Amino acid sequence: MSKVLASREENYAQWYNDLVIKADLADNSAVRGCMVIKPYGYAIWEKMQQALDQMFKDTGHVNAYFPLFIPKSFLSKEAAHIEGFAKECAVVTHYRLKNDENGKGVIVDPAAKLEEELIVRPTSETIIWNTYRDWIQSYRDLPLLINQWANVVRWEMRTRLFLRTAEFLWQEGHTAHATAEEAVEETRRMLDVYADFAENFMAIPVIKGVKTANERFAGAVDTYCIEALMQDGKALQAGTSHFLGQNFAKAFEVKFTGKDGKQDYVWATSWGVSTRLMGALIMTHSDDKGLVLPPKLAPFQVVIVPIYRSDEEYQTVCDAGRAIKKELERFGVRVKLDDRDTHKPGFKFNEYELRGVPLRIAIGPRDVANGTVEVARRDTLEKEVLQMADLSNKVVHLLEQIQQNLYTKALSHREQNTHKADHWDEFIQKLDIGGFVYAHWDGTSETEEKIKDLTKATIRCIPLGNPSEEGRCILTGKPSTQRVIFARAY
Amino acid sequence: MSKVLASREENYAQWYNDLVIKADLADNSAVRGCMVIKPYGYAIWEKMQQALDQMFKDTGHVNAYFPLFIPKSFLSKEAAHIEGFAKECAVVTHYRLKNDENGKGVIVDPAAKLEEELIVRPTSETIIWNTYRDWIQSYRDLPLLINQWANVVRWEMRTRLFLRTAEFLWQEGHTAHATAEEAVEETRRMLDVYADFAENFMAIPVIKGVKTANERFAGAVDTYCIEALMQDGKALQAGTSHFLGQNFAKAFEVKFTGKDGKQDYVWATSWGVSTRLMGALIMTHSDDKGLVLPPKLAPFQVVIVPIYRSDEEYQTVCDAGRAIKKELERFGVRVKLDDRDTHKPGFKFNEYELRGVPLRIAIGPRDVANGTVEVARRDTLEKEVLQMADLSNKVVHLLEQIQQNLYTKALSHREQNTHKADHWDEFIQKLDIGGFVYAHWDGTSETEEKIKDLTKATIRCIPLGNPSEEGRCILTGKPSTQRVIFARAY
Repeated sequence: MSKVLASREENYAQWYNDLVIKADLADNSAVRGCMVIKPYGYAIWEKMQQALDQMFKDTGHVNAYFPLFIPKSFLSKEAAHIEGFAKECAVVTHYRLKNDENGKGVIVDPAAKLEEELIVRPTSETIIWNTYRDWIQSYRDLPLLINQWANVVRWEMRTRLFLRTAEFLWQEGHTAHATAEEAVEETRRMLDVYADFAENFMAIPVIKGVKTANERFAGAVDTYCIEALMQDGKALQAGTSHFLGQNFAKAFEVKFTGKDGKQDYVWATSWGVSTRLMGALIMTHSDDKGLVLPPKLAPFQVVIVPIYRSDEEYQTVCDAGRAIKKELERFGVRVKLDDRDTHKPGFKFNEYELRGVPLRIAIGPRDVANGTVEVARRDTLEKEVLQMADLSNKVVHLLEQIQQNLYTKALSHREQNTHKADHWDEFIQKLDIGGFVYAHWDGTSETEEKIKDLTKATIRCIPLGNPSEEGRCILTGKPSTQRVIFARAY
Repeated sequence: MSKVLASREENYAQWYNDLVIKADLADNSAVRGCMVIKPYGYAIWEKMQQALDQMFKDTGHVNAYFPLFIPKSFLSKEAAHIEGFAKECAVVTHYRLKNDENGKGVIVDPAAKLEEELIVRPTSETIIWNTYRDWIQSYRDLPLLINQWANVVRWEMRTRLFLRTAEFLWQEGHTAHATAEEAVEETRRMLDVYADFAENFMAIPVIKGVKTANERFAGAVDTYCIEALMQDGKALQAGTSHFLGQNFAKAFEVKFTGKDGKQDYVWATSWGVSTRLMGALIMTHSDDKGLVLPPKLAPFQVVIVPIYRSDEEYQTVCDAGRAIKKELERFGVRVKLDDRDTHKPGFKFNEYELRGVPLRIAIGPRDVANGTVEVARRDTLEKEVLQMADLSNKVVHLLEQIQQNLYTKALSHREQNTHKADHWDEFIQKLDIGGFVYAHWDGTSETEEKIKDLTKATIRCIPLGNPSEEGRCILTGKPSTQRVIFARAY
C-alpha cells in the first residue's frame, strides 16, 4: 500500500490532520473554521455521548434544552464572562434576506435589523441563569441538576479539526445549589465523572487538578480540569468543571428562601466536555498506520474479512462469517462483516487498520475446514490463529485486554514523559523534550505570564492532593510550597 | 384542587399553552420565539429520538453532523429554496464584540464584519449538497444515507410552544441516489417510517399523502407528508419526506459516473420531523386534567405513591413500594417511586395526572397487609384494586392496553371528524365543525389559494392510494377525478 498518512516522526500535525480526514472522522467545511463530522467520526462521538449521558443520569442529572441565541445584554451582565467571550462571538444582527432592487442577488434586508443583537451561544451560563431565576424560589427547588447537549460557537482564528473549531458539539452541565459546600462537592463529583470516563472508556490516563487564576473559566471562582498527555508530549485539557460561586446568581438576581426563611443568592457549577475529546482520543492511541480505538468506543469492535478465490469459496466463508457475527453479537460484541466482493482483502485490511477497528477476523476456506480463524489485534498488530470453539469468549477477553493495554501504554508514556525541573535550564530542556514538567512557581499571575512568554508553556494545573514541598520558583527564585505542572498544550 | 388548566371547551389555545407550561414541558425564553425545553419535556423528546434513531439505523442510515452556518451564496443557489427561506433567516454579520469607546457598554465591533454573511441553518440541503460534491464520484459511493440531529432556526413571526418556534430541534435525513426510482423509493420508505412511528409509538393515526404544489417544500419535486387530526378538529402536519429530484445536485454540481461510465447528476431526498411532534402528542391525547402520555414515550410509565400517616407506616409502605419498583424494572417498566414526605398523596395524584404518567400505583398500610395495590389508569381515569401476585405481568399488560386504547380513541375521533362535502355550503359547514373534509378540487393552485383565502382551509394532502372518483370542484365546479383532504391546520 502507498503511504496514506504522514508519519508522526516527520510531521505530527500533518499526521493528525491526514488521519482525521483519511479515517473518515471529519472534514473541513466551506464555512471557515466549521467542520463536518463524518458518519464514522460521529458514530464514535455517539458512543461517547451514550456513556457520558448514562453517567450524568446515574449521578442524578436530567437533560434540557436552552436557546441557541443569547441577547447581547445577557452576555454583558457578568463582567469576567463578557471579557472572556466578547472577542470570539458570532453575532446575529438581522432576521431576513431579500432580493436586491439593483439585481445584485440576495442581500440582507436592512429593514429587518434586530433591536438587540443576538450572540450565538459560546456557552450558556447567562441564558440559563436568566431562566433559573423563574425556576428557583425556595430551598425545595434545589439542587437543580441539569445538563444540555448542544452546539456552541467560538470564533477561533486558528482552527484544527476537533481540537479547535468555530462550532463544536458539547455537553454543558449547569447546576444550582443552596450552599457553597454542595456546589463545590458537585464540581468535584463531575470532575471525577470525567476522569472516570477518560480512563475507563477512552483509555486515557488523566491528572485531576485545579487551574490557576490565569487559566480559569471566565466567570468562575475555581476551574477544575482533567489534563492528558498526547504522544508528541503536548498536554490537552480534556474536560473542565467550574465552581461559579454566586457570580451568575448575582448577575441575574437568582435568590432563594432557605429553611431559615432567609434569602440568599444561589450557588452554581458548570462543567463540560466537547468533540475536542475526539482529538484527545486520536492523539493518545493512534499510530502511523491510522486510528487505534479503545473497544468500548469503537462503532465496530470486530470486523470479519472473508478470504476467497472462487464464487463457491465466497459463499462458504461468508456463511461462516455470518455465523461468527451472529454468535459474537449474542455476546454483545459490535461486529461488521465486510462481504463486499468489489474490494480485495488487502485493501480491506488497510482500511480497517486506518479506521482503528480493535480486532480483525480473517476467515478463508482452509480456516472453515480446520475450524479456525485468524485474529489480528489493532493495538499490537499481532496475529494469531484461534480455534472456533469458544471463539466468542476469547474475543470478549481480547477486547478487554486491548482496552486495558491501551490505557497501560498511555499511562507508561505519560510516566516516561513526566519530569521534575529545579533550575531554569533544566526546565527549558525538559519542556523541549516534551511532557509534563513539575516545577515550583511563586504563585503570581505575572510569573506565570512571563514563563508563558518565554517558553510557550502554561501551568496545566495544580494537581489535587498535591504534596506540599518547600522550593523556589523556577523563574523568580521566590519561595514556593508546592510544584505545579507545566507543559506546552493544545 | 384549584383548576390548573383552562378547559379545552372554553379556550383550546389557552388550555394547550397552560398544559405545556404547567406540566413542565417547555417555557418561553427571554429570546423572542425561542423556547426552553424543560427536563420533563426533554425526557419525552429523548424517548422519541431513541425510537426514531433506531428506526433510521434499521433502514441503513448513519448519523453525521454538518455546520450550523450556511454562507448566503449557498442558500441562494437553488431558486425555489431561497425564495422559500429568505424571509425568515437569522443572519450572522459580525464575529466580535468590543467595549464602546464612549462608555455605552459592549457593542458589535464594526471592524469584525464578515465578508459574506452566514445564515443560521433553516434546513441543511445546501451545505450538505455542497459537501456531497466531494464525497460522491461514482455509483459505488451511492446511495449515501445520512441523517443529522440538529437545531434549526426559522424566524417565525407568530410562535407557539413546540408548534412553531424560531429555533427548534429536529432530525433531517439527506440521501443521495443513482436513480430517480431509488430516490422515490427512499422518500416513500421514510414516509412509512414516520407513519409507523406516529402510530405505534405516539399512538397517533396519520394519513399518508402527497402535498400540492402550493404546499411543497421549497426546492422539492414532490413532498410527501403524514397528517394528523387534533382534538379541536384542526390538522397538523407531523412529518414530511421530500423527493428533491436533481435540483440540489444541479445547484451544487454533484455528478457521479454510472456503471456505464456516463456522468449524471445525483438524485436526492430529504425528510424530517421536529419537536413539533411534541405539540401533536399533547393535542392528540391530553384532557382537561393535563397531559396523557402513551406508555412507549412516557419517561416514567408507572409512579408509585405511598399512603401513610405515621413514620412507621411510611417505612412499611415505602419498603413495599421499593420492592414493587424493583420487580417492575425487572420487567423493563420505567418506574418512579415518589417517597417525598414533604407532599401529600392528593398533591402527588394531581401532579402525576397533570404530567400524564400512564399508571399510578397507590399503596397504603392496609394494601400491604392485604397484599394488594390500587392501580389508576391515566387514560380512562379508572381505578382498580389488584392483587400483588403477578403484578408485574398485569402492569405490562395494562401499559399495552393503554397504548392501544389511546390509538383507538384517536382513530375514532378522526373517523367521527372526517366528512365529505359536495357543495360549497356543505364544505363551509363541515370546515366550521372541524376535521378533515374530503372534497373535489380542480387541480389548480389558483383555486387552492382562493379556497384558502375564503375559508382559511388548505389542502392537507392527496392521500396515497386515493380512489379515483368523478366529481366537480367544490369552488369552481370544474371536473375533478379525485377528492383531496381539506382542513384548517396548525
